[in-house]
Amino acid sequence: MNPLEGAEQPGAVAQQVRRQRGDTSEALTDQVGQEWPVALVFNGISHAVMMCTPRDLEAFAVGFSISEGIVARSSDIQDIEVELHDGDLPHAEIQLTVVQQAFAALKERRRALAGRTGCGVCGVESIDLLDLQPERVPDTGFLQRLAPDAIARAARDLPAHQALTRLTGGLHAAAWCDASGAIRYAFEDVGRHNALDKLIGQLVLDRADTQDGFVFLSSRASYELVRKAARVGIPMVATISAPSSLAITIAQRAGVRLVSFCRETSYVDYGTV
Amino acid sequence: MNPLEGAEQPGAVAQQVRRQRGDTSEALTDQVGQEWPVALVFNGISHAVMMCTPRDLEAFAVGFSISEGIVARSSDIQDIEVELHDGDLPHAEIQLTVVQQAFAALKERRRALAGRTGCGVCGVESIDLLDLQPERVPDTGFLQRLAPDAIARAARDLPAHQALTRLTGGLHAAAWCDASGAIRYAFEDVGRHNALDKLIGQLVLDRADTQDGFVFLSSRASYELVRKAARVGIPMVATISAPSSLAITIAQRAGVRLVSFCRETSYVDYGTV
Repeated sequence: MNPLEGAEQPGAVAQQVRRQRGDTSEALTDQVGQEWPVALVFNGISHAVMMCTPRDLEAFAVGFSISEGIVARSSDIQDIEVELHDGDLPHAEIQLTVVQQAFAALKERRRALAGRTGCGVCGVESIDLLDLQPERVPDTGFLQRLAPDAIARAARDLPAHQALTRLTGGLHAAAWCDASGAIRYAFEDVGRHNALDKLIGQLVLDRADTQDGFVFLSSRASYELVRKAARVGIPMVATISAPSSLAITIAQRAGVRLVSFCRETSYVDYGTV
Repeated sequence: MNPLEGAEQPGAVAQQVRRQRGDTSEALTDQVGQEWPVALVFNGISHAVMMCTPRDLEAFAVGFSISEGIVARSSDIQDIEVELHDGDLPHAEIQLTVVQQAFAALKERRRALAGRTGCGVCGVESIDLLDLQPERVPDTGFLQRLAPDAIARAARDLPAHQALTRLTGGLHAAAWCDASGAIRYAFEDVGRHNALDKLIGQLVLDRADTQDGFVFLSSRASYELVRKAARVGIPMVATISAPSSLAITIAQRAGVRLVSFCRETSYVDYGTV
């Protein structure tokens, strides 16, 4: 019996290191971000393993299920059980019970992926699997309500919500901001996709309106981040670092406003205003 | 017929953007890193789709195949064909022909992954699948031959090899350095894992000794990067940003020296000297 099973994890752990500065070497204790294999198991079938910081795992499970299109809404998830296993090889397992319709669709998708011969991805069917043709997010007028200094305010305030990043230098943050740029939620993870999934999951759990705010990410903008945001109708994605070509394409197709290189004094706008 | 099919890609593409500085907005042309879905197809069966910068894809295919343990050596790969498909939804497909033994093992692994019920990852079998118990890299005395200023030299020289990063602000680099810290190869990609796979693939294609040098990465150190390096016997991984807890664990188990926060004047050593 593992006494730590089920205990909340700190997100960072102490590590003995040696710091070299010029010719001087000193031993000291450093903090590093926790990266654990986290298995997502749907109705008893293991679907994916994400390398994840073992905090907020219930929100992570809800966000992943919705942003990956496994369930359409949180009520499709009937039960979530998180098991943390500390020890030599720390890992976690999240057991989800989803409604039969979602589970049948997941099994069908897995069968299609496993059984297809030839190119399973570049044809029309598989481009659909990658979701490169997202539906457009609803226009609720949020972008018109956005304060002119909202991005600057979020950029200024984000560091105050990055406790684990200050401690370790090595995590990403995903924050939820209202139309004034005030940060309402923030999650940290070794993986930027996981941080966004945790954020989306908590918004859904709290029945917050995902169309009435924007995401501010400490990372670059890749295809996956924009697609996840689009799937829950988020009208704007702001990132501190650069976007990729496909992130821009997907944002424009989904009608998500994408702004990158966000600082207190400047940003670059990649379209959809 | 696509006239661009097969053409080498630049790695970055022009993009019309609007830059906001304070109250001033200006339209300009920016460069963004190319992110394409790249399907890896083994003996006609699609195995994985990576989001990748479409350059050096033959090296990428070789590196991925070896660092993921799909083949044991480059001679197990009998043929590689790269097809680039430009257009509205640019994507690439890499057709690999591998020896029957490797293909049989891959099919077996895919069957095991698809068919398992219950937790497919957290049990003993699946921890093996994740390769959290790597074999130790051979000790060839490289770390004793490493120049005291090798890390500083690599940190100083890397930016000169990051042409796409200068252009776009959004790619990662993986470089190969000799015992003096001189950079011998460097690859860039929107994905840090892809950059490392391209590097490993080129080393293998050129029959370079992967035990006689070190990897210098512009990114953080995660589990996957250290595991990939360990699989080809690389004795040291150096990164500019922070390591994760599992990266440190895997490095120590594999006997790979891991140094992070590498600068011209300092670094932090996470063990195995």
